Amino acid sequence: MNQPQVGATDNTSADAPGRGMAADIAEQPGVYADVLDHGAAEIARIAAIIAERRPRSVVFTARGTSDHAALYAAYLSEIRLGLPASLASPSVVTVYDARPDWSDSLVIAVSQSGGSPDLAQVVAAARASGALTLAVTNNPDSRLAGEAELHLDVRAGHERAVAATKTYTAELLTLLLLIEGIRTGTGRLDAAEATAIGKLPELASGVLAGTGAAELAGRYRFASRFVTTGRGYAYPTARETALKLMETSYLPSLAFSGADLLHGPLAMTDPGVPVLAVVGSGPGGHAMWNVLTQLGKQRADVVVVGAADVPGQTARLATPAVDERIAVLLDILPLQQLALHLAIERGENPDAPRGLKKVTETV
Amino acid sequence: MNQPQVGATDNTSADAPGRGMAADIAEQPGVYADVLDHGAAEIARIAAIIAERRPRSVVFTARGTSDHAALYAAYLSEIRLGLPASLASPSVVTVYDARPDWSDSLVIAVSQSGGSPDLAQVVAAARASGALTLAVTNNPDSRLAGEAELHLDVRAGHERAVAATKTYTAELLTLLLLIEGIRTGTGRLDAAEATAIGKLPELASGVLAGTGAAELAGRYRFASRFVTTGRGYAYPTARETALKLMETSYLPSLAFSGADLLHGPLAMTDPGVPVLAVVGSGPGGHAMWNVLTQLGKQRADVVVVGAADVPGQTARLATPAVDERIAVLLDILPLQQLALHLAIERGENPDAPRGLKKVTETV
Repeated sequence: MNQPQVGATDNTSADAPGRGMAADIAEQPGVYADVLDHGAAEIARIAAIIAERRPRSVVFTARGTSDHAALYAAYLSEIRLGLPASLASPSVVTVYDARPDWSDSLVIAVSQSGGSPDLAQVVAAARASGALTLAVTNNPDSRLAGEAELHLDVRAGHERAVAATKTYTAELLTLLLLIEGIRTGTGRLDAAEATAIGKLPELASGVLAGTGAAELAGRYRFASRFVTTGRGYAYPTARETALKLMETSYLPSLAFSGADLLHGPLAMTDPGVPVLAVVGSGPGGHAMWNVLTQLGKQRADVVVVGAADVPGQTARLATPAVDERIAVLLDILPLQQLALHLAIERGENPDAPRGLKKVTETV
Repeated sequence: MNQPQVGATDNTSADAPGRGMAADIAEQPGVYADVLDHGAAEIARIAAIIAERRPRSVVFTARGTSDHAALYAAYLSEIRLGLPASLASPSVVTVYDARPDWSDSLVIAVSQSGGSPDLAQVVAAARASGALTLAVTNNPDSRLAGEAELHLDVRAGHERAVAATKTYTAELLTLLLLIEGIRTGTGRLDAAEATAIGKLPELASGVLAGTGAAELAGRYRFASRFVTTGRGYAYPTARETALKLMETSYLPSLAFSGADLLHGPLAMTDPGVPVLAVVGSGPGGHAMWNVLTQLGKQRADVVVVGAADVPGQTARLATPAVDERIAVLLDILPLQQLALHLAIERGENPDAPRGLKKVTETV
């Protein structure tokens, strides 16, 4: 029997909707390889400088997609370095003109464009208060890069689509290498870590070769909203997925840590609302089992992202069983694909979403 | 001409839907008066102890509604005390078994019930690492209260509805008094602050006497989702409003800081999605004008919460023109009323939402 032909949009011509985003997504294994081959030495140099200066805490400042990379790095800072980490609200500096004492802190601004004036202002204020400042951007010529004492270029190259994909994962890898480099004190990774991270380009290629996301897009063509969830390291993935669905398909998407989902919003997950659940192969994934049981009781439609099937799941987007802090760089890939294909199915062009600019100037 | 009779539910009988939540909401001016008259001395005593110990930073840990009170207090800590503040993810401690070095920090856990084991674990870990720990709860006999070195009872009394209202505002006031008390160093407020805060019971009564929220509930009976927004001090209000709408009416509600709204999600605000915008009478409100202009271009249906009309608004929920850090304790009141009346209009019982328990045990 023939399969019904659904969603057979021709997506190969130069101006086909989503062609830019598809190309950006496909480049990510190459970006990982480039950062590892050509970016790692500079990251190690910066990591060694930071280790030498021994900051007492790490403060991140970022917006949008980059805020999710910063959230990931905040988990890394606390778990891998034992350094208290926080995400600073720029408005404290830019709106209320306050000057928190960040003198013992490492202040890291993360921004694809480096063009948002509020982050530059926060970095300037932090530097004036004696903080060690670092800008992580995809634009070494940006104002933000110039404002900070240290700068790292995430080397993602030109991003075609307005919705960020490869700049996000390049930020993730840069921040992972940075923090693991600070951890050893020398800036370089220890051998086990280098081996695990070195597999990322190949693992990412394998994940992107999967066709699960494209197939699922048809199923959720008429969903009116999504819930995304994950715990610990996977929570930034849930947040970034929700933003991507909103940016490209205008689908209201609520991201909850698995724990917060149990504090009320669980009531909103009925069979009509698909749930995208990131379930890792470590403690964060383990902590999701209670959440998945509750979702099962709600008869929720659950797509799992991870390495193992979960009872009651509708489908699973397969990603490798690696350490959860590395899984963050892989689990997002099929979710980016899902956002892309869903937008195309819905007749949108994810390369140029309504009302979204590449550089958003907020003060 | 007679007005059409719409939504004339009898809501006076003992088991009428929402009767408990309505009573909780109505008690808030009295709770403010009680905290000011009978709680302030103990708050001052604790504030003086903290001031004496001179913490270098403040770390909050909380979940759900209490997380929004903590977010408010984080803004206060940075703006009023100049102390870097952060919201710790319990999973760092409870899932990944990490022990960040909080030795110079004040760690404050905020929880209505004090019954969530994860917060108690974070406080125990923080105390072991040398942090000064404080639990802010509505239950002095809770495990959390016992685990922390210091404890403050927010004195809200028994809350009838599962969705938190008066315990939230009691937390806000307790945290405001605490931080202003730390600011002077003596634990007591300076005279201007005492005068401004002393007006809260009367101002709250005035806000609650307004009928705007009840009237608006009919207009939004058939809305399928909401966007809430605010900047700076008003951002926690946007977050708490979204949670309240989700808990009581199961309406997906997305909260964005005004700045983040411009980074993408603005595209989702079309005329079919009502926006609740908190626009204060200070710098945070001023920073919302650009956001309101953009919302106007999207032809969004905008309800403003604040003291002044905004061009193009659909309606305004009136609150007094007071300092934005005090406005947080007033702006939420008509939004709680809106959540209550909307739930009743939609045939739900906000006193006992589906799938929501008063004490949520997450680990």
